[in-house]
Amino acid sequence: MSKELVLEKINQAVHILNELNIDLWLIFVRESHTIPDPCLPVVVGTNCTWQSAFLIHRSGNTTALVGSLEVPHMESVGTYRHVVGYVNSVQEPLREYLESYNPQKIAVNYSIDSNLADGLTHGMYLTLMQYLQGTPFAERLVSSEKIITMLRGKKSAIETGYMKEAIRHTLEMYDMVTDYMKPGMTEKQIAAFVLNEVQRRGLELAWDEEHCPSVFAGPDTAGAHSGPTDRVIEKGQIVNMDFGVKVNGYCSDLQRVWYVLQDGETAPPPEVQRGFDVISEAITRASKKISPGVQGVEVDTEARSYIVENGYEEYQHGLGHQVGRVVHDGGAGLFPAWERYGNLPFLPIEKGQIFTIEPRLPVKKHGVVTMEEMIQVTDYGCIWLSERQKELFLIRG
Amino acid sequence: MSKELVLEKINQAVHILNELNIDLWLIFVRESHTIPDPCLPVVVGTNCTWQSAFLIHRSGNTTALVGSLEVPHMESVGTYRHVVGYVNSVQEPLREYLESYNPQKIAVNYSIDSNLADGLTHGMYLTLMQYLQGTPFAERLVSSEKIITMLRGKKSAIETGYMKEAIRHTLEMYDMVTDYMKPGMTEKQIAAFVLNEVQRRGLELAWDEEHCPSVFAGPDTAGAHSGPTDRVIEKGQIVNMDFGVKVNGYCSDLQRVWYVLQDGETAPPPEVQRGFDVISEAITRASKKISPGVQGVEVDTEARSYIVENGYEEYQHGLGHQVGRVVHDGGAGLFPAWERYGNLPFLPIEKGQIFTIEPRLPVKKHGVVTMEEMIQVTDYGCIWLSERQKELFLIRG
Repeated sequence: MSKELVLEKINQAVHILNELNIDLWLIFVRESHTIPDPCLPVVVGTNCTWQSAFLIHRSGNTTALVGSLEVPHMESVGTYRHVVGYVNSVQEPLREYLESYNPQKIAVNYSIDSNLADGLTHGMYLTLMQYLQGTPFAERLVSSEKIITMLRGKKSAIETGYMKEAIRHTLEMYDMVTDYMKPGMTEKQIAAFVLNEVQRRGLELAWDEEHCPSVFAGPDTAGAHSGPTDRVIEKGQIVNMDFGVKVNGYCSDLQRVWYVLQDGETAPPPEVQRGFDVISEAITRASKKISPGVQGVEVDTEARSYIVENGYEEYQHGLGHQVGRVVHDGGAGLFPAWERYGNLPFLPIEKGQIFTIEPRLPVKKHGVVTMEEMIQVTDYGCIWLSERQKELFLIRG
Repeated sequence: MSKELVLEKINQAVHILNELNIDLWLIFVRESHTIPDPCLPVVVGTNCTWQSAFLIHRSGNTTALVGSLEVPHMESVGTYRHVVGYVNSVQEPLREYLESYNPQKIAVNYSIDSNLADGLTHGMYLTLMQYLQGTPFAERLVSSEKIITMLRGKKSAIETGYMKEAIRHTLEMYDMVTDYMKPGMTEKQIAAFVLNEVQRRGLELAWDEEHCPSVFAGPDTAGAHSGPTDRVIEKGQIVNMDFGVKVNGYCSDLQRVWYVLQDGETAPPPEVQRGFDVISEAITRASKKISPGVQGVEVDTEARSYIVENGYEEYQHGLGHQVGRVVHDGGAGLFPAWERYGNLPFLPIEKGQIFTIEPRLPVKKHGVVTMEEMIQVTDYGCIWLSERQKELFLIRG
């Protein structure tokens, strides 16, 4: 991320601190090459080796406490006004800082519900508590989840622009796949074709190459979270692909669906077409439900119950998630009220957030129908960032 | 990492559990693409999206509890005997597992001192405690630091072979740099030459490209933890490079030092030569101190005091660290007894571990002298994995 974007996000964070009435945001990390805190690319712009504290104060002041050998580097990165080095322990400069600013409410980088706000490891938490022992500050810690959720969720115009570009590339490559795919090819062959094109365009994948793209065909498919296999694509099968790329660190995440015509067929069989129509309508209904203040669970329920009312089994995952610098970006999600999603289904949707919508249903003997579109929340509803798939893409033998 | 290597490491882990008298190792993670637990490549062999528990029992039994959509993928990875999927919450299968095995001592993936053993985030720790509420198991948790330290430290023959290969590439590229470097070039130019060669060989860097290679020249250098700059290399300067690559996921980490001859010089000035000789002797002395059971702090002290006795200021970092799948690999280190290193300086060195030795000292008006070699601990001492730098490499104008 460029220095300018980091400074823009730090500035946004200062506004959020004031809005939430939090005095200080303390990001506490070490060896962030190995266990990265997802905050760092957003509001620091580099990594650190030794125990480091990145301090954003509601006054707008920013201070980085880093190992002395990393002071010149941190100064050259230039995202923090004050850079303080230490040799023996970060405890001393940290306590000095806290005594001088005396913050009443300190947000720290951990979270039960949002993994992107949970960069503080448990060992580092125990270390921090030890450093603060005997001070009033240990009692003043709260989770910085809400800060991070707001910061990551609300995309600036620059951020949205990068994501639109990632979506454009993805849809172009889906068109190429439609021309390329033939029955007799394996899932892996189709994935290799896409990977080759990604490389030709000089792009990065949005997630692990092991599952990106994911290609899954027919009724015995392993689904989107397994990698492409040596299964051969056959006539009469539904084929799905789940795929995304990054542009300047920002992701797309879209799914498309194909039907492979049998000899003599000119259109999909009615049960396949009906599956497509139900998924398409579920996406439309979900999108109409989205606007600021609505809870994700309400949107999920809209699509889920429509699918169940039409006689299909419900999908065993959430309807959609936020997308940003990572493909499953944090905070509110269009999730059902299942324990594994914690409080995320109940967080109100906010303007500027970008979500996927990706319901699915099985069609016996043919496979799975799923599409994944991307939308951005506006003042009164949402807009499509991806041009929707309107028809099943048909593959001829 | 191949399935075979993961199974080898799981088998090693089972032996360690029995040696340490621990019944169960519980690795608890979520969205490990975003915040990776460094255990996963070693004893799981893939990532997970939803809250997942990887359970290695002292009986040798292995069980993975994962989101239902990831069951087929986990089965195809094939590293765990039992794969159990869940839809609503991992709490149910986790409690069932614990009630069935009734482990008395459960090691969990967090650690105060070793960042590589500290993959459990604080939010996930709180979640785990909530899941175990009302059971006897919450009281039975201990840190799995020691398991991970032993597992990562002791390299198998295959692992050592990969690292030797990484070292060979690195030393070959250092020879190429010696032929290439000329006064008038910038630090960045030399780094670009190396990066080009790394790419030509199809290798990965051992750490961030921002600092790898690090090139730092002259008396005003920013040091090894800053990236290469536009500083021009001048006659009379000492030049250092810190650089490493990965082979099959295993790192090298070596530093080399050059002197740029002034017009008319045929050898380095005495004060530069003396700096080199003191560093070289410090490395020799440190290496002689190393053997199983010795504490890292003793080795650090050996080199540090030799340098100080010779009238130089002491280096502001540890003498050396372990190397493995990451360049700063976990557990025992050749560190001074500074708070920032926690208990790591005091852990006994063990057979099979691989360390760097990298003292440094400043030479006024010329720059910094530092070399970094790699050794492996044997039954009674250590062996050199890198062929040592015996003389200052001389650059002619």
